[in-house]
Amino acid sequence: MRSFAGRDILSLKDFERQEFFRVFEIAEQLEPIARNRRNDDLCADKTLVTAFYQPSTRTRLAHESAMHRLGGHVTGFSDAKMTRAGDWYQESIKDTVKMLEFYGDVIVMRHFQQGAPHEAAKWSSVPIINGGDGWGEHPTQILTDLYTVLREKGRIDGLRWLAVGDMRMRTMHSLGYALSQFDCPVTFVAPPDMGLKPEFKQELTDLCVDFREVEHVEQAIAEADVILVEPVVQPDYTKSRQEAGEHGMTPDNYKITRELLSKKAKSDAILLHSLPRMDEIPPDVDITRWSRYWQEAFNGVVMRMALIALVLGKME
Amino acid sequence: MRSFAGRDILSLKDFERQEFFRVFEIAEQLEPIARNRRNDDLCADKTLVTAFYQPSTRTRLAHESAMHRLGGHVTGFSDAKMTRAGDWYQESIKDTVKMLEFYGDVIVMRHFQQGAPHEAAKWSSVPIINGGDGWGEHPTQILTDLYTVLREKGRIDGLRWLAVGDMRMRTMHSLGYALSQFDCPVTFVAPPDMGLKPEFKQELTDLCVDFREVEHVEQAIAEADVILVEPVVQPDYTKSRQEAGEHGMTPDNYKITRELLSKKAKSDAILLHSLPRMDEIPPDVDITRWSRYWQEAFNGVVMRMALIALVLGKME
Amino acid sequence: MRSFAGRDILSLKDFERQEFFRVFEIAEQLEPIARNRRNDDLCADKTLVTAFYQPSTRTRLAHESAMHRLGGHVTGFSDAKMTRAGDWYQESIKDTVKMLEFYGDVIVMRHFQQGAPHEAAKWSSVPIINGGDGWGEHPTQILTDLYTVLREKGRIDGLRWLAVGDMRMRTMHSLGYALSQFDCPVTFVAPPDMGLKPEFKQELTDLCVDFREVEHVEQAIAEADVILVEPVVQPDYTKSRQEAGEHGMTPDNYKITRELLSKKAKSDAILLHSLPRMDEIPPDVDITRWSRYWQEAFNGVVMRMALIALVLGKME
Repeated sequence: MRSFAGRDILSLKDFERQEFFRVFEIAEQLEPIARNRRNDDLCADKTLVTAFYQPSTRTRLAHESAMHRLGGHVTGFSDAKMTRAGDWYQESIKDTVKMLEFYGDVIVMRHFQQGAPHEAAKWSSVPIINGGDGWGEHPTQILTDLYTVLREKGRIDGLRWLAVGDMRMRTMHSLGYALSQFDCPVTFVAPPDMGLKPEFKQELTDLCVDFREVEHVEQAIAEADVILVEPVVQPDYTKSRQEAGEHGMTPDNYKITRELLSKKAKSDAILLHSLPRMDEIPPDVDITRWSRYWQEAFNGVVMRMALIALVLGKME
Repeated sequence: MRSFAGRDILSLKDFERQEFFRVFEIAEQLEPIARNRRNDDLCADKTLVTAFYQPSTRTRLAHESAMHRLGGHVTGFSDAKMTRAGDWYQESIKDTVKMLEFYGDVIVMRHFQQGAPHEAAKWSSVPIINGGDGWGEHPTQILTDLYTVLREKGRIDGLRWLAVGDMRMRTMHSLGYALSQFDCPVTFVAPPDMGLKPEFKQELTDLCVDFREVEHVEQAIAEADVILVEPVVQPDYTKSRQEAGEHGMTPDNYKITRELLSKKAKSDAILLHSLPRMDEIPPDVDITRWSRYWQEAFNGVVMRMALIALVLGKME
Repeated sequence: MRSFAGRDILSLKDFERQEFFRVFEIAEQLEPIARNRRNDDLCADKTLVTAFYQPSTRTRLAHESAMHRLGGHVTGFSDAKMTRAGDWYQESIKDTVKMLEFYGDVIVMRHFQQGAPHEAAKWSSVPIINGGDGWGEHPTQILTDLYTVLREKGRIDGLRWLAVGDMRMRTMHSLGYALSQFDCPVTFVAPPDMGLKPEFKQELTDLCVDFREVEHVEQAIAEADVILVEPVVQPDYTKSRQEAGEHGMTPDNYKITRELLSKKAKSDAILLHSLPRMDEIPPDVDITRWSRYWQEAFNGVVMRMALIALVLGKME
């Protein structure tokens, strides 16, 4: 297995099966620090640089919080408008990175443009973590989700996934690549013009991912062990809050209600959502046996602790 | 007395007399850290989360600075527009808090909506400090003010207050509740339609606060031991900087000038202002015997150190 | 030599020759911390306050990163719009500083208004570092540049400078003052109405700076040992990215191309740019023997480490 020290976390396409398990192992080892709420000093001599060209709460703060739990320092920007990097200069990724690499020891980058973190990694002498790149990928989120599955279900292989949302989104790409390393059939549910793109379908087929597509969550929920939901936000499909009324913004096809879960879902299925949500999961689901999105939020910090410690060479 | 460990600081209505004094005692113990400008490591293993849905300089930085003085870590957001929490999702306080609680060990929240920190406290597993909620309260500011009075005058009971400004503001609510635990008569001066609301007056009466209202600061300044001033910013009462001219923006009724102080104020009265100010206290007052707003600014850090250390269980 | 402990870094006009060398010496001592990427704990008990009234990436992050490398804490604001300091109150510098001085132990300030950091220094009990004030000065940038020259060329005296850009800019003012303490002739190249102002020329003459002005970089590049470039951004002289086409935005007069360097520059000349850039230095120059702007970026952190450690009295 390749070492994680000094390595970029750009895509889950790069990940081998045993690397997933290595990351999960380190996450489990570091988890007590977060659970006991006592910041450690494992990375006290290191600085994380946040380079967020788009606003984000969860991804940015989960990384910052993870670094603080490891005793480290944090600097950076949380919105490109706050920096010269975002002004009329339209500075190249290269120029920005040849500066940022001196400001810390690992960089987490969110960018509106697909591939920007890969471009950054070409020029950086420190590891780049992809915090979401346009329509590209969101590897740390899906690592969090898989880790949550492992912790909540005790295993990953042999579980059947149901993924609901906009299939063109970065999370779905990372999910597809990740599942290629596990024995996990997956069913996708998306509005017609938010379906899997033909080239991505081809990729999944080439990677031997066992997937199918259906139109309504009702057609697949009964057999799902893991239900992963993302908001469906296309104006054509969702209503505004004003016109939503009692039926909500999200069409039933892409909505996981308490009633649906009670009637059809497996008793031990788990429900994931990276949040924020609209009404695709109504709040009355929160206290049901299926909900795991808050464990997922906690694991989001633990996973970033593991990744930061690994790429900094502080854990092997 | 109830323990402060794990407790939310939402309102001064919750505070008992001996709890005020406990907080002041801890503040006095921690003050040398700030005075000597040497960050301690009392909270080195803890993280403060700032959740500011409205911009703020003093309240946010005083909390951040306090946490740094205690050796702790800080993460969070300083403007909701910088986060997904502020975008069209209009994420619920519950959903936001079920994320933020994993990012640190105490949350300070400023929100444009009254009651938001209370809602947050319902869902959070870590203490919430109210950093100002709409028209609601601003407990940490008034704790700072009372502590300043104690330090500067040697006591709180038996002193007569004069409070000038918009009586519908959160600071005034916290002041009213706080004074109910002390033997302090208070006189309020506000423009007619910025006066105490009937329901708040009833509350003050029920709480046995000895208060009265007058129209002009001149009517009450002579007997005041503590003069607390807030800006009066309603367009009807204040002029723009353009049209203000030599007479200033703030009407004389709500203005504390050097001349007024010299002519009428007690020689040992003290003048508080949480700043920023317009011209309700002109700069030539700054070096007079009455001015204490910069001590108040210093005490603002000390008070937040005390509150953070207490709710984190680092001081008892 | 005056002590640096407690001192403001406002202008290079204040700097004596031996003070420059003292700063460079400290920078060299602290450099291994940055080079080895292991944050030290020299300033672990101190807090840096960033007061940025204008967005900035490099200057703000270089200071923050420097403080983290020294193990210290950082708080502050990165855009006045994010604070009450920037709203309609138009709070005075005095009032803002009488607050900020309690939030940390050294303040770095960028302000759109020339002289703002000097005004701040009048009121602050902690050192103020000028991070760029309007058309005024940018002392830490030029200290970085001189340090880069010293490291790359082994000396400062006897080297001939070529400075290209808008001569009304703050960097050029700091450069002029700095060179008055060294034996360094300098040639300035700027568009006609961006030339040195008469009063600044008079100052340079009074300070015995050996300078001249030419119209085209070609007229001076052959004899230059140090080429310092800034963007020329006046709409009259530069084209928009849309209309730039293959000839680029910046006129040839103010542009350092690979071809020009190869044909005319000294073989051991070095090329500096504080970045960000437009096309005044095209990317194909980056890997040539002349380019030193990324070393400059690295040195930017080291220089701020030295300055912070010095004014905090942590190095003598």
